[in-house]
Amino acid sequence: MANEGSYEAASKRSDEIAADLEVHPEKYTMLTGDRPTGRLHLGHYFGTLKGRVELQEKGCRTNVLIADYQVITDRDTTEHIQDNVYNMVMDYLACGLDPNKTMIYCHSAVPACNQLMLPFLSLVSEAELQRNPTVKAEMEASGHELTGLLLTYPVHQACDILFCKGNVVPVGRDQLPHIELTRTIARRFNNRYGKVFPEVDALLSDVPLLPGLDGRKMSKSYGNAISISMTAEETAKRIKKSQTDSERMITFDPENRPGVSGLLSTAAICTGRDAAEIAEEIGMGGSGQLKKYTTEAVNNYFEPIRERRHQFEADLDYVKDVLHEGNRRANEVAEKTLGEVQEAMGMVY
Amino acid sequence: MANEGSYEAASKRSDEIAADLEVHPEKYTMLTGDRPTGRLHLGHYFGTLKGRVELQEKGCRTNVLIADYQVITDRDTTEHIQDNVYNMVMDYLACGLDPNKTMIYCHSAVPACNQLMLPFLSLVSEAELQRNPTVKAEMEASGHELTGLLLTYPVHQACDILFCKGNVVPVGRDQLPHIELTRTIARRFNNRYGKVFPEVDALLSDVPLLPGLDGRKMSKSYGNAISISMTAEETAKRIKKSQTDSERMITFDPENRPGVSGLLSTAAICTGRDAAEIAEEIGMGGSGQLKKYTTEAVNNYFEPIRERRHQFEADLDYVKDVLHEGNRRANEVAEKTLGEVQEAMGMVY
Repeated sequence: MANEGSYEAASKRSDEIAADLEVHPEKYTMLTGDRPTGRLHLGHYFGTLKGRVELQEKGCRTNVLIADYQVITDRDTTEHIQDNVYNMVMDYLACGLDPNKTMIYCHSAVPACNQLMLPFLSLVSEAELQRNPTVKAEMEASGHELTGLLLTYPVHQACDILFCKGNVVPVGRDQLPHIELTRTIARRFNNRYGKVFPEVDALLSDVPLLPGLDGRKMSKSYGNAISISMTAEETAKRIKKSQTDSERMITFDPENRPGVSGLLSTAAICTGRDAAEIAEEIGMGGSGQLKKYTTEAVNNYFEPIRERRHQFEADLDYVKDVLHEGNRRANEVAEKTLGEVQEAMGMVY
Repeated sequence: MANEGSYEAASKRSDEIAADLEVHPEKYTMLTGDRPTGRLHLGHYFGTLKGRVELQEKGCRTNVLIADYQVITDRDTTEHIQDNVYNMVMDYLACGLDPNKTMIYCHSAVPACNQLMLPFLSLVSEAELQRNPTVKAEMEASGHELTGLLLTYPVHQACDILFCKGNVVPVGRDQLPHIELTRTIARRFNNRYGKVFPEVDALLSDVPLLPGLDGRKMSKSYGNAISISMTAEETAKRIKKSQTDSERMITFDPENRPGVSGLLSTAAICTGRDAAEIAEEIGMGGSGQLKKYTTEAVNNYFEPIRERRHQFEADLDYVKDVLHEGNRRANEVAEKTLGEVQEAMGMVY
């Protein structure tokens, strides 16, 4: 986690950018992405996907990366990766990412971007790599030994951001050390070899993290997440099975009543209402009525998204076309940037 | 340095391969290369270049890499790199590498090879990277802090060896830990995802290291090296200025008479004679006669090589063509291998 001072500075800068984005979207190139380890869920949707679509519609250049190599930073297998990648594209399209406006592509398909690892690794010290607190936290959370790929993935992330001259990256606070390293790499490269890369800033989310149905961190492995791709029936079933408590009266109290409050938060974000207000309305209706309300809220919100998703599910060729076109564009961009890097470094023979 | 047991095993295996190479050269793909930090000298020539040409003529597949990204493992500049690369190709061609038989190419020109860094970094732990004794020794020798690129360069070396399915790498004993890591990466990849890569073995040199003119390690920075590209006059001048000692009688005694013995070793390797025999022949002729003899030995040996080099110096277009064609072939090979890697990992979309 970045220290308080640098967090405040990043937060202030993020607010300035958010304001400027309304006026001058054309000044910004956004890069973000996801690890294709499973289906995207409501946490992803409200945490980042929705915001990406808004940025896309504002008119800034939007790039969304399917980070397939990041799957193996802390795993020994790439099982189901093809299926996960296709489904991720379907989720993106269903949620409103428009491939004519947003470049959607895969890590593994862009060699010239990945090659930037070499010059960039020369710009950071082993000590700087070791110091990154988020890498350590992710390693511990994974229960996997620290691989060379996890150790160096903030540098790989710098490649992702800088290959398309990204200057704004939507992140949570825990990702600030990565953005800081990207800034360091860009600055050192520009100083040493001549200006090629922009200054990169974090766009900090002001949306509070949506908890899982049980109030814990939303995670596929906890069984407390609703995937975008679920049917209305699957959604109802998952909510029905979620654990509340023995108190009939519904109140919004995340600390003491995580299950009830997880449902309320979900219902609130889908209806745009206040969680406490919903609680008051249900009152002695109990958890049965709360679950019914939440189920309807989720299913109503996601009905059009899921409808669109079905259309893409039925047309895998289109999904592949979207990815291939995104990969083609990403290669074009990456080869141009790598050319500038080689030129600046004098590696032109 | 590899421990005694693994050195003995590697050495035994190397002898077996050297013998088998005489009978079945077609079974072997060799990869080796140089950092383009300056002109190649007699140490490079007798230590590796000559051996490469011999392997080329035996008929095994020979690949020679100009490792331009390795220049920045411990330097903050790529100064003169273009000039160094062109001159390296000239040295190669002059010494007998035949671009129709040997693939001569540059690190920075082969993105699909460099991309292998990503999957390969996932196959090694940070602890394994930290343990490499040669990396530490090189870091200390350079006086530069340990960069991310130096820390991970054994993995990058594995990419170089494995992208062309190299199975034999001519190295000195200090490079054995790198070969061991390449073997580990190939084995883990094959176990985890399916067989793509061969077993790699070291081909240990049996040529003793040629010292510099002053008997110390030959190095451009010590001013004790004769470059292949020097003229006969420059060679004479450098030998004339080399430090011997006050004893007139010439004897071969590397420990106590480093200067005299450095000259004798140089003369010996260029004439194919025994250093002690040359010493005896010169006897009371003193260092004047020794220097004259050594100068003639070097200039006679390198006269045809230098003559060829002049022709290449006068035809930079041809030198560039050689490199471009090598790069083109390397890309073809790298893209094929990367395709197999993606296929094995299921990263095909």
